[in-house]
Amino acid sequence: MATDDLSKSFAALADPTRRAIVARLTLGDATVSELAAPFAMSLQAISKHVSVLETAGLVVRRDDTHRRPVHLRSETLTGLTDWITRHQRQAEERLGRLDDALAATSEEPSSASSRRTP
Amino acid sequence: MATDDLSKSFAALADPTRRAIVARLTLGDATVSELAAPFAMSLQAISKHVSVLETAGLVVRRDDTHRRPVHLRSETLTGLTDWITRHQRQAEERLGRLDDALAATSEEPSSASSRRTP
Repeated sequence: MATDDLSKSFAALADPTRRAIVARLTLGDATVSELAAPFAMSLQAISKHVSVLETAGLVVRRDDTHRRPVHLRSETLTGLTDWITRHQRQAEERLGRLDDALAATSEEPSSASSRRTP
Repeated sequence: MATDDLSKSFAALADPTRRAIVARLTLGDATVSELAAPFAMSLQAISKHVSVLETAGLVVRRDDTHRRPVHLRSETLTGLTDWITRHQRQAEERLGRLDDALAATSEEPSSASSRRTP
């Protein structure tokens, strides 16, 4: 079950409609009606997707007018890329060390073979 | 339903145990038994999590021995960060333009107030 914040954010992005909503919000705040426009979906269905994004901390509904525009919280996205890149860096550093070790090993037999007499 | 590759990968990371498995694999390939060691979970449960990661293209099981070590596919993680950073950049560029516009607007009233006589 996705109870922690990172799990909720990753789960929220695991849907093409919700990713399309995030992509639309990068262009500016939008109401649910505006967000629904490109989709063959009910306002209720889009509103549900927005609620999932809101619970995940990816968007916030601005309550200053009755139109309630939805706003993207870009900093939550940063948390996701931070997690991924931190672990990728760790894997790459390990592969770098492995490459160095392999290079050191492959130098050995080649110098041995050059010493070999025909 | 998460049918597309990006959705599957995000969904696979939306679980703390699966993220811990990914984190472990950044340190090197591991068998399911090795992956299961830090968890109070059955081998079957861990194997199921590995299968979810495998379907999402995040890991591959190396079939060269009967021990079948699990290997992290770092390039799939890159696809996720690419998606996120592309959209973040779009949002930041828009905010940058907004800041410029606000700066231009705020210069107007301040120059008007400096012209105001006491």
